[in-house]
Amino acid sequence: MEDHLTLCDIGNTSYHFFDGKRDYKESIERCDPASVNDDVYYISVNPKADEALSKLANWHDLGGAIEWKKYYETMGIDRVIACEAIEDGLIIDAGSAITVDIVTEGTFEGGFIYPGLDAMLESYRNISSRLDYSLNFELDLDKMPKNSQDAISYGVLRTLYSEVMRHNKKIYLTGGNAKVLSKIFPEAVVDELLLFKGMKKMMERVC
Amino acid sequence: MEDHLTLCDIGNTSYHFFDGKRDYKESIERCDPASVNDDVYYISVNPKADEALSKLANWHDLGGAIEWKKYYETMGIDRVIACEAIEDGLIIDAGSAITVDIVTEGTFEGGFIYPGLDAMLESYRNISSRLDYSLNFELDLDKMPKNSQDAISYGVLRTLYSEVMRHNKKIYLTGGNAKVLSKIFPEAVVDELLLFKGMKKMMERVC
Repeated sequence: MEDHLTLCDIGNTSYHFFDGKRDYKESIERCDPASVNDDVYYISVNPKADEALSKLANWHDLGGAIEWKKYYETMGIDRVIACEAIEDGLIIDAGSAITVDIVTEGTFEGGFIYPGLDAMLESYRNISSRLDYSLNFELDLDKMPKNSQDAISYGVLRTLYSEVMRHNKKIYLTGGNAKVLSKIFPEAVVDELLLFKGMKKMMERVC
Repeated sequence: MEDHLTLCDIGNTSYHFFDGKRDYKESIERCDPASVNDDVYYISVNPKADEALSKLANWHDLGGAIEWKKYYETMGIDRVIACEAIEDGLIIDAGSAITVDIVTEGTFEGGFIYPGLDAMLESYRNISSRLDYSLNFELDLDKMPKNSQDAISYGVLRTLYSEVMRHNKKIYLTGGNAKVLSKIFPEAVVDELLLFKGMKKMMERVC
């Protein structure tokens, strides 16, 4: 394995790079993967990116190295890689979608998908102009709301919280909204590099 | 009070009429309120409908009769009326939005707003074509999902379920999706006429 391996996690809205020292994001629209000269080891949930990258010799898809029998066929590879990064716990990967997966003693127990925070707010806006609010992360989770912003914030955050907490697992938060969500899950470990850890772990096992 | 009072609950997508015997819906686009000759007592959460109806002498807005101090200023009048219909319990009104409100011994305790089932599925579809699924209402709520349809169904339904159930209240289900949601809340009372009961109760009190 090289010292300065470049890793990339490709989602629905951005390329997330990690060069071993720092991580940075480039939007799907702006990033031209053909302009990258180094070898890049990547995972992708983005069908369009998949197609473009299959033609580039220096982009190496890590998807082939996954033991899919531990997971399920249509599961997003980012979720699989996050599960590979931990031994036990519940992972919340909060990006354009929020995925929640449980691993117990190295075994994937299942998981679910919730819309991302922006997607949720957009869906309220689309229902009615009267439901156009931002989220209140200072929301009191133990009090039924009596104003519109909190009624929506509670609908987005408390429902997710109630389901997550009943599993009594150590919580790992990753993805673009990890930090804001940590206000709701203060006991969670925030690790924005979790997927890169999973990728490295998998590469070490395979190589 | 007349024998054959016509009541109408106007939401974001339809006019829901009740003539004392039967109820029927007409879509917002198709229904011309000016073509109705009878007196109609209505509530509305729809700003466009509000404007059109304010010009019609036979359409009577029940909004003025509400004791707003028991609720909050920007709360949807449909939620207020549903709360007026019961003495104690948790109301799930599942329409284009899903509202959840709690009443204890006649007092509104607060409530939250969740996107409607269609709005939720649309938000997954908008995130990625790989998240385009219908809901599985036969979902096992006690098992973490291991396939995409269940991962999404669980994300929509189990999160809501976990939050609703922790309140230990008698559950009332109303709105266009009351029946499908009763598969997830089998112990709930399904009452698609709940809002009309609230409207009648309020009119009797005022008259």
